[in-house]
Amino acid sequence: MRLAELSERSGVPLATIKYYLREGLLAPGRRISATTAEYDEGHLRRLRLVRALIQVGRVPVATAREVLGHVDDDSLGRTIRLGAALWALPQVPEPDEEDENVRAAQHEVDQLLRTLDWTTAQNLSSISPAHRSLVVAVATLRRLGYAWDAELMAPYAQLMHQAAVRDLDFVETHPSEAEKVETAVAAAILFEPVLRALHRLAQEEESARRYGIE
Amino acid sequence: MRLAELSERSGVPLATIKYYLREGLLAPGRRISATTAEYDEGHLRRLRLVRALIQVGRVPVATAREVLGHVDDDSLGRTIRLGAALWALPQVPEPDEEDENVRAAQHEVDQLLRTLDWTTAQNLSSISPAHRSLVVAVATLRRLGYAWDAELMAPYAQLMHQAAVRDLDFVETHPSEAEKVETAVAAAILFEPVLRALHRLAQEEESARRYGIE
Repeated sequence: MRLAELSERSGVPLATIKYYLREGLLAPGRRISATTAEYDEGHLRRLRLVRALIQVGRVPVATAREVLGHVDDDSLGRTIRLGAALWALPQVPEPDEEDENVRAAQHEVDQLLRTLDWTTAQNLSSISPAHRSLVVAVATLRRLGYAWDAELMAPYAQLMHQAAVRDLDFVETHPSEAEKVETAVAAAILFEPVLRALHRLAQEEESARRYGIE
Repeated sequence: MRLAELSERSGVPLATIKYYLREGLLAPGRRISATTAEYDEGHLRRLRLVRALIQVGRVPVATAREVLGHVDDDSLGRTIRLGAALWALPQVPEPDEEDENVRAAQHEVDQLLRTLDWTTAQNLSSISPAHRSLVVAVATLRRLGYAWDAELMAPYAQLMHQAAVRDLDFVETHPSEAEKVETAVAAAILFEPVLRALHRLAQEEESARRYGIE
């Protein structure tokens, strides 16, 4: 398809697409004459992901370029490729290890991962941003006086593991490796608001079932 | 306990506690002389919730006062009392019903609630902010070209329902009605970052199990 059709099908204005091309967020089309280039479904898919990163994830352009660089690096195995792409997204800062609440949170998270037997999460604990986010979130709770611990978190972690199994099953329905990694990154950014809203709705529903709505 | 001890045990500076007292976010202590008042565990608990709302939830003071007003309104049944408190929190704006993606999202969410047989969520669909958040999140996905539908969301909704059952079981471990409602509001604000981090960690773990970490 030509640039005009790419714009129409994606809903992204021409000027924005040209900006993404200049910034290297979108690969150039296949040149078919001095003035025209041809774009394919891969461009359309990539354009969706770029918008998801920039418009919904509010990721800076330089960061988006780094994320996409990992998505495109087929020298990596899938776990590392996906991990590298997700880890390039903006993350929570390192917590202060001198803080007693941070140390208590680290202890509870370590305990949780041992209980669950999540060996990769244990091995990657010093470098994974997801691990760091969890420690920071638990430390915040503890600082506010809510002593949520490994025992309380374990059943939630198991539910989230079931969600992760579905995530990867869904990712695997996509034919090409590029689509699989792109879908996984898009899902990581876009699906959180859906899960959060589903959780709130489920709380309303369960509360009504237990206590009525009088 | 005296004000100084309340400050020490909560970690909230004296000046901040006095500000919360002036703003009516914290009830006055029981006066025991012209210059001193006595505070109890209820004050400590409320202080935690106020900090969770303002510091973590970034809720404006006037909104926090409204939320707490509902928490304290024991003329309401628990579902409505909790609902009113959560609904007073800042919410996503009304979506544009003329937008085809919003209409498609509404259709999928309606379909989802029927499939799940969530009757309260269906009855409250025109007023619930959780319902509105879900429609907005699904419309955003559709606008970006990710056509996630009722069928794809249903298993996630069921997992979130299991999480909601645990949430309410946890809330019910608290003895008084006031503590139950306070805990539910604090959890709604504070537990989302924990769930999100658990989800990301579970994705790393599951990806490593399926594809290794080479």
